[in-house]
Amino acid sequence: MTLTPPKLLVFDVFGTVVDWHGSIASEMARLYPQVDGGAFALTWRQGYQPAMARVRSGELGWTRIDELHRLILDNILPSFGLGELPEAERHTLNRVWHRLNAWPDVHAGLLRLKHRHTISTLSNGNIGLLTDMAKHADLPWDCVLSAEVFRAYKPDPRVYLGAAETFDLPPSEVMLVAAHQDDLAAARACGLQTAYIERPLEFGASQPKDVSPHPDNSLHARDFLDLADQLDAARAP
Amino acid sequence: MTLTPPKLLVFDVFGTVVDWHGSIASEMARLYPQVDGGAFALTWRQGYQPAMARVRSGELGWTRIDELHRLILDNILPSFGLGELPEAERHTLNRVWHRLNAWPDVHAGLLRLKHRHTISTLSNGNIGLLTDMAKHADLPWDCVLSAEVFRAYKPDPRVYLGAAETFDLPPSEVMLVAAHQDDLAAARACGLQTAYIERPLEFGASQPKDVSPHPDNSLHARDFLDLADQLDAARAP
Repeated sequence: MTLTPPKLLVFDVFGTVVDWHGSIASEMARLYPQVDGGAFALTWRQGYQPAMARVRSGELGWTRIDELHRLILDNILPSFGLGELPEAERHTLNRVWHRLNAWPDVHAGLLRLKHRHTISTLSNGNIGLLTDMAKHADLPWDCVLSAEVFRAYKPDPRVYLGAAETFDLPPSEVMLVAAHQDDLAAARACGLQTAYIERPLEFGASQPKDVSPHPDNSLHARDFLDLADQLDAARAP
Repeated sequence: MTLTPPKLLVFDVFGTVVDWHGSIASEMARLYPQVDGGAFALTWRQGYQPAMARVRSGELGWTRIDELHRLILDNILPSFGLGELPEAERHTLNRVWHRLNAWPDVHAGLLRLKHRHTISTLSNGNIGLLTDMAKHADLPWDCVLSAEVFRAYKPDPRVYLGAAETFDLPPSEVMLVAAHQDDLAAARACGLQTAYIERPLEFGASQPKDVSPHPDNSLHARDFLDLADQLDAARAP
């Protein structure tokens, strides 16, 4: 393998680092057992790309994910029979995105990767959300980078190039780690290396995801421990 | 004491967290023993406020501290007999600000403070510099906030208010921790709580600093362990 070891690893977060579907489904089961929590999680998440598109198009000014999540939430509550939910409960529920749980390999994997690389988030989630999540899920980031820093949402090139520039690195010394091929393709177009992570259960056990390799990625890994193994192997003589 | 426990602690870094004077003096002694390293450190740092003033006034567009440090360095090298230093050595020397050492109480103090508070940098240093420094000095930040995020240098109110806004907190639930009364005064004017930290040796043993209390600060602490004690005591019934 001819991989140049990347100095900086930047991570997509929702789905790649944390299990948003399982975390939201289980919080819903606890708080509102009358609702299908898995369907609720999927519906909430389906509003995510369209909401960011409203910011990208200029229809909305710069708006953080916390606020976009809330706009979507207010929209979907009635169809789940929760249209009368009081403000305080809406606020608390919206913050579930701050307390998502990590996939089981993440903590140990990040600790290993952190030895030889700088590890940072590179998420559309806002800084406060990502910081709260890191405390909740014990994620040992070296840095918390967010679309909020660059005032643009992935896949806008400013986000990927901004991460490289922040660390005064050429894009080729930065690797995006993500469970989504479209995110990786956009990073590759900016000259970053890319590592795909299989998260077959991102959408729940009833909707297994296609996790086939894409030949253009620099690496394809089962999880963060496998990624650490492969990066170690690429470094060995 | 009627202190409301702050949710977010934001830290000034140069002088408050790390010993820039001692770290630079000792690196100079190792690399260029013919130079008075302590005087060199003081001269370099003296260029810091005037360089940021050029950004504040608009004479320079947004410029990161790494580049400002380099402008100052190029200016002062000749007067220390290092005017002929080659580019690669200038680049390496300029990065000394990425590998400053922490004061002895910092690591243990931050670990204690991190239990009950979110802890973040709030420095004029750029994000890459602060992240490298955290890896070098083992600083367990929850978040790396910098003037670079807000495109304004302290004491610009946008930096202090930006930190509160990033975490969706009223300024009164944020505390700035710093060894500089002017930084604290500017934060207080924005409604933040303030904690002064004594760093009598910031400018070296030959220039002990006045560390007398200012009555307007919320807290006055000897070091980060003392700060943790005082915040714990304020919380006890």
